Amino acid sequence: MLPYFTEENSVETVNARMSEGANPRLVQVMSALVKHLHAFAKEIELSQSEWEVAIDFLTRTGQICSPERQEFILLSDTLGLSMLVDAINNRRPAGATENTVLGPFHVAGAPEREMGASICLDGKGESCLFEGRVLDLNGNPIEGARVDVWSDNAEGFYDVQQPDIQPKWNNRGIFTTGADGHYRFVGIKPVSYPIPDDGPVGQMLAHLGRHPYRPAHMHYIVTAPGYEKLVTHTFVGEDEYLDSDTVFGVKNTLIAPYERLQDGLAEWRSPFDFVLVQENTSAER
Amino acid sequence: MLPYFTEENSVETVNARMSEGANPRLVQVMSALVKHLHAFAKEIELSQSEWEVAIDFLTRTGQICSPERQEFILLSDTLGLSMLVDAINNRRPAGATENTVLGPFHVAGAPEREMGASICLDGKGESCLFEGRVLDLNGNPIEGARVDVWSDNAEGFYDVQQPDIQPKWNNRGIFTTGADGHYRFVGIKPVSYPIPDDGPVGQMLAHLGRHPYRPAHMHYIVTAPGYEKLVTHTFVGEDEYLDSDTVFGVKNTLIAPYERLQDGLAEWRSPFDFVLVQENTSAER
Repeated sequence: MLPYFTEENSVETVNARMSEGANPRLVQVMSALVKHLHAFAKEIELSQSEWEVAIDFLTRTGQICSPERQEFILLSDTLGLSMLVDAINNRRPAGATENTVLGPFHVAGAPEREMGASICLDGKGESCLFEGRVLDLNGNPIEGARVDVWSDNAEGFYDVQQPDIQPKWNNRGIFTTGADGHYRFVGIKPVSYPIPDDGPVGQMLAHLGRHPYRPAHMHYIVTAPGYEKLVTHTFVGEDEYLDSDTVFGVKNTLIAPYERLQDGLAEWRSPFDFVLVQENTSAER
Repeated sequence: MLPYFTEENSVETVNARMSEGANPRLVQVMSALVKHLHAFAKEIELSQSEWEVAIDFLTRTGQICSPERQEFILLSDTLGLSMLVDAINNRRPAGATENTVLGPFHVAGAPEREMGASICLDGKGESCLFEGRVLDLNGNPIEGARVDVWSDNAEGFYDVQQPDIQPKWNNRGIFTTGADGHYRFVGIKPVSYPIPDDGPVGQMLAHLGRHPYRPAHMHYIVTAPGYEKLVTHTFVGEDEYLDSDTVFGVKNTLIAPYERLQDGLAEWRSPFDFVLVQENTSAER
């Protein structure tokens, strides 16, 4: 018989209950969760009323979730957990393009477009030519790489946030590289925008004195047979929120140049090369 | 300018965002939360798919909550967090009756009953005389102590779980001590019961090889002017779940005797004295 629960033995008492027949990874995860959760409560001497606030906060966070809104992902994002999980699971060798968070606005099945085509369907915003190459770590072009891109529109909303206002697949498209590894498309120079901040996470940010903004960015998923999937953004270099992205997604290597074009296809040009890692060479889980 | 988020600097980067103007206690709590949450993810190298499972679990936990059901409290209870918060906030000197969790089934405003009256309104179960004294740490009786009691019925359900089946205020009542400090009422010998296990928390317990049962217990809130509020249970000594209470509520000092009565008011008698602590003498928050 184990001793009954006390403040001192709390972790061991709870974790001793997990059955030897349970999934070993589940037991490992839950035992660590209990250990860190109890250490947190002990360190700050969590009061009963603070616990009640936490229960209410988590409940409201769950209840505001819908098919169009995932408040727990926002919570994970704003506490840096999403970026941490992304970092742990995508450790790459030097020279490879770094990952960043997927975010909630990717939609599978975007239209495949001709190389060089425009993804901007609503005619708003400052046009920008995005181009560059998909390369391996040795600098060789990768043929047949799929470059799945998406961004907000000039008003800071993704098409799925405004299904009655924006054309379907506005500022989205998939481009496939040829033998030279080049990609090229016309979009808009993205704009910074706030994450949805009218719920519990927005209240949390306000109480912490944090703003809800993300710096302007273009999303990419780059895949190619035999290479690790790359999920990333490129950021607009001069954005005022680069140093304070509310989801901590910025990395130095992902800040892209934006050059004014005097003539040609677009008002801006943003060149960026993506470097993929062959499968089974990273420490990826 | 701070460096951008990395796996190594994750805690410092997130916590540096909290404003100096924010409530200092909130900053302390949230900084500790981020520190322990990140330490958890790093220790187990949380995978992307495990993170997705966690997001889904928390979302479902929030969405099943209703005015009649609080799944996040069940989660806190079954991870030992509720008992830990209770322990941290109710450190008492030796000799004082120990606290345990309030649980979700207390209802304020139960009927005030005559000393010695029965609280069992549905006529089910084995009757039991509960009696004893409310004392201070020196063994002196406390006059005017309010003893608010509640238990499940003989089928393991509280009245509020079966509003269409049980009489309102079944197995509940409030008794006030006289000059001798005695309390005395007739209830039933409580029975063990499972916490609601048809939701996410029940699924978690099943995956961990844990049962959802609580050992049989009578709930008490004992209050008296000038004394700290006591929230506790007394447990039925021979219960099969004493060593495995799914919410970790059992303490040695709270296990009460149940004696068979051969004649008299009831089939059983369970004597128990409550010892209260004067306000401002404990290390209570």
